[in-house]
Amino acid sequence: MKLTIYLAGEIHSNWRGKVKALAEEKDLSCTFVGPQENHGRSDEIGEMILGSQPNSIVKDEAASRINNLRTQVLMEQSNLVIALFGDEYKQWNTAMDVSAALTAGKPVILIRPEHLHHPLKELSNKANVTVETIEQALSVVHYIFE
Amino acid sequence: MKLTIYLAGEIHSNWRGKVKALAEEKDLSCTFVGPQENHGRSDEIGEMILGSQPNSIVKDEAASRINNLRTQVLMEQSNLVIALFGDEYKQWNTAMDVSAALTAGKPVILIRPEHLHHPLKELSNKANVTVETIEQALSVVHYIFE
Amino acid sequence: MKLTIYLAGEIHSNWRGKVKALAEEKDLSCTFVGPQENHGRSDEIGEMILGSQPNSIVKDEAASRINNLRTQVLMEQSNLVIALFGDEYKQWNTAMDVSAALTAGKPVILIRPEHLHHPLKELSNKANVTVETIEQALSVVHYIFE
Amino acid sequence: MKLTIYLAGEIHSNWRGKVKALAEEKDLSCTFVGPQENHGRSDEIGEMILGSQPNSIVKDEAASRINNLRTQVLMEQSNLVIALFGDEYKQWNTAMDVSAALTAGKPVILIRPEHLHHPLKELSNKANVTVETIEQALSVVHYIFE
Amino acid sequence: MKLTIYLAGEIHSNWRGKVKALAEEKDLSCTFVGPQENHGRSDEIGEMILGSQPNSIVKDEAASRINNLRTQVLMEQSNLVIALFGDEYKQWNTAMDVSAALTAGKPVILIRPEHLHHPLKELSNKANVTVETIEQALSVVHYIFE
Amino acid sequence: MKLTIYLAGEIHSNWRGKVKALAEEKDLSCTFVGPQENHGRSDEIGEMILGSQPNSIVKDEAASRINNLRTQVLMEQSNLVIALFGDEYKQWNTAMDVSAALTAGKPVILIRPEHLHHPLKELSNKANVTVETIEQALSVVHYIFE
Amino acid sequence: MKLTIYLAGEIHSNWRGKVKALAEEKDLSCTFVGPQENHGRSDEIGEMILGSQPNSIVKDEAASRINNLRTQVLMEQSNLVIALFGDEYKQWNTAMDVSAALTAGKPVILIRPEHLHHPLKELSNKANVTVETIEQALSVVHYIFE
Amino acid sequence: MKLTIYLAGEIHSNWRGKVKALAEEKDLSCTFVGPQENHGRSDEIGEMILGSQPNSIVKDEAASRINNLRTQVLMEQSNLVIALFGDEYKQWNTAMDVSAALTAGKPVILIRPEHLHHPLKELSNKANVTVETIEQALSVVHYIFE
Repeated sequence: MKLTIYLAGEIHSNWRGKVKALAEEKDLSCTFVGPQENHGRSDEIGEMILGSQPNSIVKDEAASRINNLRTQVLMEQSNLVIALFGDEYKQWNTAMDVSAALTAGKPVILIRPEHLHHPLKELSNKANVTVETIEQALSVVHYIFE
Repeated sequence: MKLTIYLAGEIHSNWRGKVKALAEEKDLSCTFVGPQENHGRSDEIGEMILGSQPNSIVKDEAASRINNLRTQVLMEQSNLVIALFGDEYKQWNTAMDVSAALTAGKPVILIRPEHLHHPLKELSNKANVTVETIEQALSVVHYIFE
Repeated sequence: MKLTIYLAGEIHSNWRGKVKALAEEKDLSCTFVGPQENHGRSDEIGEMILGSQPNSIVKDEAASRINNLRTQVLMEQSNLVIALFGDEYKQWNTAMDVSAALTAGKPVILIRPEHLHHPLKELSNKANVTVETIEQALSVVHYIFE
Repeated sequence: MKLTIYLAGEIHSNWRGKVKALAEEKDLSCTFVGPQENHGRSDEIGEMILGSQPNSIVKDEAASRINNLRTQVLMEQSNLVIALFGDEYKQWNTAMDVSAALTAGKPVILIRPEHLHHPLKELSNKANVTVETIEQALSVVHYIFE
Repeated sequence: MKLTIYLAGEIHSNWRGKVKALAEEKDLSCTFVGPQENHGRSDEIGEMILGSQPNSIVKDEAASRINNLRTQVLMEQSNLVIALFGDEYKQWNTAMDVSAALTAGKPVILIRPEHLHHPLKELSNKANVTVETIEQALSVVHYIFE
Repeated sequence: MKLTIYLAGEIHSNWRGKVKALAEEKDLSCTFVGPQENHGRSDEIGEMILGSQPNSIVKDEAASRINNLRTQVLMEQSNLVIALFGDEYKQWNTAMDVSAALTAGKPVILIRPEHLHHPLKELSNKANVTVETIEQALSVVHYIFE
Repeated sequence: MKLTIYLAGEIHSNWRGKVKALAEEKDLSCTFVGPQENHGRSDEIGEMILGSQPNSIVKDEAASRINNLRTQVLMEQSNLVIALFGDEYKQWNTAMDVSAALTAGKPVILIRPEHLHHPLKELSNKANVTVETIEQALSVVHYIFE
Repeated sequence: MKLTIYLAGEIHSNWRGKVKALAEEKDLSCTFVGPQENHGRSDEIGEMILGSQPNSIVKDEAASRINNLRTQVLMEQSNLVIALFGDEYKQWNTAMDVSAALTAGKPVILIRPEHLHHPLKELSNKANVTVETIEQALSVVHYIFE
């Protein structure tokens, strides 16, 4: 068995690198996909492909269309979603990805620091499993393979 | 034709009252549903029904199970979702509700102040219509009835 | 708003009567449906309609086809399922009804005495809300109407 | 053609080993998946990954979330479910897995001793095929490959 | 509760009249829909609306498009299908309607004379309930309302 | 029985008025819905609600979001679609509406002048029924009610 | 690209052998699956696996459960169905398989002698393509690969 | 990761060749499928396989059935659709393919010259991304693989 896992969450820190390293360490047969991790490229991709846009809202709309297309294609190929919430950033995209996955029947492991339990309580209840660290998330993935 | 509209978003200000007043003013044949608006009750509902819980995370889990059940029943009966984002609060529930509705094929009108366009760009692109005011949202609803 | 609620669970005690009485007391706008509550009739319905069957397994198959048809029609019309587990009987039908409802996207409130939490832990986790008494279950329903 | 078969049922005896041995003997091109078979690990997995929980219900909830995630991922990859019922244990999980599979359109072969036909009659009627022994279940699988 | 029931089967005898009379006798709250019962009109409807067609196959195609549209609209509104098989006619439409209903999740009661059990065995197994007479079919419907 | 019918097609001529008049004449129990028929309003609705847009493409995007929301809400409530193709205009919206309806399982009656049969052949084959006049379309609707 | 094709239809003549020979001749990258072609085995499979049954109806039910399971597993893996109708046999299974496939969104090529066009008109209209010979059916498959 | 992309649009120019050349240049791991590109063969395929038809409408119906079957099989296997609109031809098939894909949850990249923005505004809003050139479309695909 081989699982494809979508890694939803912020793209400013290198948490996905840590996920991948741990998966390799545990020898889990997983392929990881996720959003564009180059933040500048993610913001600029609309204008990069379509050229200059009339204002920042239209520019954002152009970029988000391409980012959402990317997410849809990759999510469709995934068997599982791991989503990370942290203290910084609005992270509305992460909530959107988690909820879209759950509604479409894809299981989700939520990672969040303990002190965020209150604002994340409904999302956490909907998710299949909520943990506090990347290590715990990968222990859950490991358990699927046992 | 009669529409049932779910009003997703924060439960601290009286924005839903404004929606309902405007709908009445425009004589729109709509029923409005939404989350528990008494914030204390929404937080305490788990312990109110199930009794004291061992810690705040379990208490939150108890409340969120009941809140999510409520949302699922009411969302299922809705033809349309209007979701409001503002400057305060995490609003991950709002993002969750919008994304669940969209994934399940329910149309969504997003209301957000202009300056939030960047962090909401992917959610805004997925939503059917994005506006800046409650008045505009209800003009869109009015247009459906024309 | 008016909800139709399917009451899954054993048909030997009069717990459904208690549910209905409490709903009336709380003035909840609900219609209740459920399995055939006359246990003998539920067991004999196959032979009652189709005549004598060659052995008890075929007789059971005849009855269960008609009971399952009944459940499917009534479940389809329901917005919510309340399921009761107790100490007696195998209650595999109850587990079957709960799981069918959840898989089809219908929300479920599970009632079970506290000491059954271990054997019901996976079903309880899948259900939307788990409570210990009929009163609590109806408090949850009441909360939807608030 | 290669089938993936989920083996639902109790995890106390080694019936899955017998299934696998027979499949090998019959040279069936099948991969078998199923729940965590180490019973202790299945019960403790919540605390093993998330640490000590405040009471046994919360501990069970933590374990069942992870067990259910595992089942969901593996069931999704399966073409067929074989479910075993016996005289011991509540087996509500087995009923839950069978019903979830059937509702999602996955075919199910039910194995049960003859004397359990009455309490299993509705589940047996919903299942595609009901047999009494592991040998018979594998004869049915063999028939698919003929 | 009020059920809409689609009556699938041949349109040469007045079996639907008998169904309706019995339902009235039993005071069942049902609306009955079904195919065009005027056989000539059913065969000619293509040319009646679209004018003369170049040959009998094209004429049949024109009629069947309109008959299938009618069935699709009425089946969609139905909660249950009662299908009658008899000794005469090919009855491939009846098999088609039953299978379409079952695949779409609509329950089916099959009526067939006992001696047809062999050629109908797979369809009968897929149907929810198989009976031999119209009276038995309506006893099953009556049981849903009890 | 009462049907809601979505009338897809150009909004420059008064063909919908003719449909409604004929339905009344034939005493068909139908409610008709459809796109905004005021062409100017349909084009301007984005700027009317959201204010001036930076260029004509963004203006069109703003209007089309609101028009598509309207169509989605009304189509969802429809049991049947009647779509008219003529010699003028691109009519890509009409093709879009027909294909969306068919893919979602809603039946479609296509009206087109005979000489358009070649470019519409694939759409016509997918539609349930193709006719040449509004009168014929309503004869088909009438046949459903017989 | 590689297609899996389910061959629905009678199991008395060797028409499937002809399909396979032609596919090889045309070098089409197809795998063919279908029902049990040994007619005796198909009828006896219930008793072969489960032992003697009390009467011929129960024996048929036992066999049909296993045959239907087989069909469901193989149909699920298929991209396309080719169904053959001829002059002999009731062929209600064939109609059932075609309709189940179409309702589940699987494309169907129907083969029938010209003189059967009238009783097959509704099924033929629902099928994607109707042809008269196996050669024509394989020309259609060949066209997909061009 | 390997994507299968359906190329919807006119079959008179060699735009698909350009897509494939660019994909090879960018070293994208894609398989491209699409409609029959030999226009004559696409129009004649009905008569080529089924023989002479009584008139041009029936001939078109015969061809479109086979073309639609081909599209359905290939679309089902695709992860993404790229659709090209230009100044010539009715292109109702293209609109049909785009809308069918979107309704079935398959993402779509629309290519159209800027001056067609107005008649395509609703389709463009529904599509995931709209671009003006083949190069831009492939830059979007490239972005998915980054």
